[in-house]
Amino acid sequence: MITIKVTPTKGMRDLLPQEVLIRDHAMNVILKNFNKWGFQHIETPCVEDISLLTNGDGGENEKMLYKILKRGNKLDLLKTNLSEKEITDLGLRFDLTVPLSRFFVNNKSKLIYPFKSIQIGPVWRAERPQKGRYRQFIQCDIDIIGEKSNIAEILLLSAITDALLDLGLNNFVLHINDRRILIGLAEYFGFKEDEYTSLFITLDKLDKIGKSGVLNELENKGFDHLKINRFINFITELIDSNLTYQESLSSLPNNVNESVIESLEEIIQTYEANFNTKVILDFSLIRGMSYYTGPIFEIEVEGFRGSVAGGGRYDGMISKFTNENEPSCGFSIGFERILTILQDKDLKIKEDDDKVVLLYTESTPLPTILKKARELINQGKIVSTYSERKNLKYQLDQLKKEGYNFFCFVEDEDLKIKPIN
Amino acid sequence: MITIKVTPTKGMRDLLPQEVLIRDHAMNVILKNFNKWGFQHIETPCVEDISLLTNGDGGENEKMLYKILKRGNKLDLLKTNLSEKEITDLGLRFDLTVPLSRFFVNNKSKLIYPFKSIQIGPVWRAERPQKGRYRQFIQCDIDIIGEKSNIAEILLLSAITDALLDLGLNNFVLHINDRRILIGLAEYFGFKEDEYTSLFITLDKLDKIGKSGVLNELENKGFDHLKINRFINFITELIDSNLTYQESLSSLPNNVNESVIESLEEIIQTYEANFNTKVILDFSLIRGMSYYTGPIFEIEVEGFRGSVAGGGRYDGMISKFTNENEPSCGFSIGFERILTILQDKDLKIKEDDDKVVLLYTESTPLPTILKKARELINQGKIVSTYSERKNLKYQLDQLKKEGYNFFCFVEDEDLKIKPIN
Repeated sequence: MITIKVTPTKGMRDLLPQEVLIRDHAMNVILKNFNKWGFQHIETPCVEDISLLTNGDGGENEKMLYKILKRGNKLDLLKTNLSEKEITDLGLRFDLTVPLSRFFVNNKSKLIYPFKSIQIGPVWRAERPQKGRYRQFIQCDIDIIGEKSNIAEILLLSAITDALLDLGLNNFVLHINDRRILIGLAEYFGFKEDEYTSLFITLDKLDKIGKSGVLNELENKGFDHLKINRFINFITELIDSNLTYQESLSSLPNNVNESVIESLEEIIQTYEANFNTKVILDFSLIRGMSYYTGPIFEIEVEGFRGSVAGGGRYDGMISKFTNENEPSCGFSIGFERILTILQDKDLKIKEDDDKVVLLYTESTPLPTILKKARELINQGKIVSTYSERKNLKYQLDQLKKEGYNFFCFVEDEDLKIKPIN
Repeated sequence: MITIKVTPTKGMRDLLPQEVLIRDHAMNVILKNFNKWGFQHIETPCVEDISLLTNGDGGENEKMLYKILKRGNKLDLLKTNLSEKEITDLGLRFDLTVPLSRFFVNNKSKLIYPFKSIQIGPVWRAERPQKGRYRQFIQCDIDIIGEKSNIAEILLLSAITDALLDLGLNNFVLHINDRRILIGLAEYFGFKEDEYTSLFITLDKLDKIGKSGVLNELENKGFDHLKINRFINFITELIDSNLTYQESLSSLPNNVNESVIESLEEIIQTYEANFNTKVILDFSLIRGMSYYTGPIFEIEVEGFRGSVAGGGRYDGMISKFTNENEPSCGFSIGFERILTILQDKDLKIKEDDDKVVLLYTESTPLPTILKKARELINQGKIVSTYSERKNLKYQLDQLKKEGYNFFCFVEDEDLKIKPIN
């Protein structure tokens, strides 16, 4: 016997039958609701050329890339001073947005335009492992490429909202902001363009470290005391106020373009007219990715920290591949986060009434077992056959935990099923 | 604009909406049928420790391993004479059987025993790309661990048969053999134990290179002319004969254990009593993997070369991890092969009668579009909203190709849907 580690590699998971049952259910619900709104399921490979995965669009995620060693003649380990670049050619995708851009440009002529895509699949990030964070996890993305009007934002929000409602999550809140408002405010309060990113990264921590934490961090970064106080006060006062979103929007300085405000009003108004979800115009909402260019969104479930879904408009990304500028907008459900909440809430998926354990003994002939199993299956049952153990009660209890609610003995002429108590 | 390659990396594929639709359908059919027979869906990570993926159980597949570069401090590229082993710690799984063994040992206390598992997911092999072969592809595996009786083989065969039938493939043939018969024959015809593997690798090519090809290759390998002629003649004569499986089995030499013959008879008899599938006892069936220890199976669809599913008993694998010897048996559907056949046969999946294109104009207010879309969705329709183009006929033709059979205009008061002709 060789000693081989039997646990999964660090940061990754084995998923047991009861977990996969809920995951499959949630995935089907999400897919069904995305489909309903006219989105189409596509797939890209999990492995992409490393040049695509290091082109800058992945931001911080590019630092967490799993790189794949070159193979065969392409790999030369005899050279000295080797760089990672020389010995790797592929990587595992860290998100579904960067591959989607490549996919769209590669397949544009075969797609309906504007293209509404669904992607559901694993991504990998070599993050420091922590509770609830995994190095392989599922993302569920919808994106619309080629639609400049707000119908894109509205379709995305509708599909996401219906998916969450259908999963049984009804107490959630939609946070909305616009990158152009953030930039307008930063400009208005006297920040320079090359300071925006650093400013926004700190502002993004408002809900975690609070106003004083944000001010401290900005001061430590060397920002002017007066400027940051005026900027942060403006934002936090609006958050703490009881203003309607119309009032908040009308209190913005003049250098935020009127069309930006009207557009955001249109999105909020249309959404509110169709869904009961609470909407919060939140000027502290940043979203990490630097590629966003317009409206940005995050959804939080009340009682649970952190967002369960997020997205926004990223009009510039695809022009990196092609001369044509394609307006793009996307939304992503944090599948693992949703699963944690479903499990915490102990939301049961509909139990199968028709899962039956068929018990046989050592002396039952094989053809008899198969014949009886088939009879039950033909009645529409899900059947698991097991050899009867001495401790029948314990055996049935175990099976009940796996969702088997009925049992019967293969000897019973009429195959009468009895409930497992 | 940076020039970035937009095609997928070599040997891998982008999957378009119409392809994914069929794949999702096929996957659901397979999963449903596996479930029906009491198997449970589990998942392991796509990435495993490299020690697991190079322990020998993967055979030839281990040579096609995608290895992942170590990260952070663990990677030292300054050393000279680096080996692949020093700079990689993880790999992409090349099958689902090796990870299953690890999973079972890791989670045994939480699983029903005997454990009947379903795994459906991508695997990766750095093969030379060729038509119909991809470097990332889906495997659909079912396995039973902990069952020494033939109920294991029968449940696997039943679930696989039902899945193939439900996919619309009904003209298939089940080939059966047993590793112990192959070994008994090799022994009987005077081969030594250390010659078996080489002998079987060549015999496996019988359907590709024919009897004379096999004899040539064996002679070139240095095997005794008389011995190989007697051995190969015995096997091909049985294949070409019109003997029943009982007659074939009774013609085997005495050193094939009687219990092996009885066991194979029981499997074939039970299977034939329940399914109409043609069964061929095929003494030239080898199956590549060296880990098989008992009955082995392959399913071929008539009119298509190569197998669509295969499997067998591999009782020794799990004892590599633990002192307990766990009888194991598994079957795998070649998902990509099935898809090719479904597409070749042009088997249509049930068309949605309820996919509707909702057309609007530049002047339609956003809330109106959303309200009308919602009305259709509430009627159970799948709705894709598009701005009406000048060439409406062309636009609708494109959408029809994607499965949209109805359309309506947002202005129509009663939202009357019309078929797309």
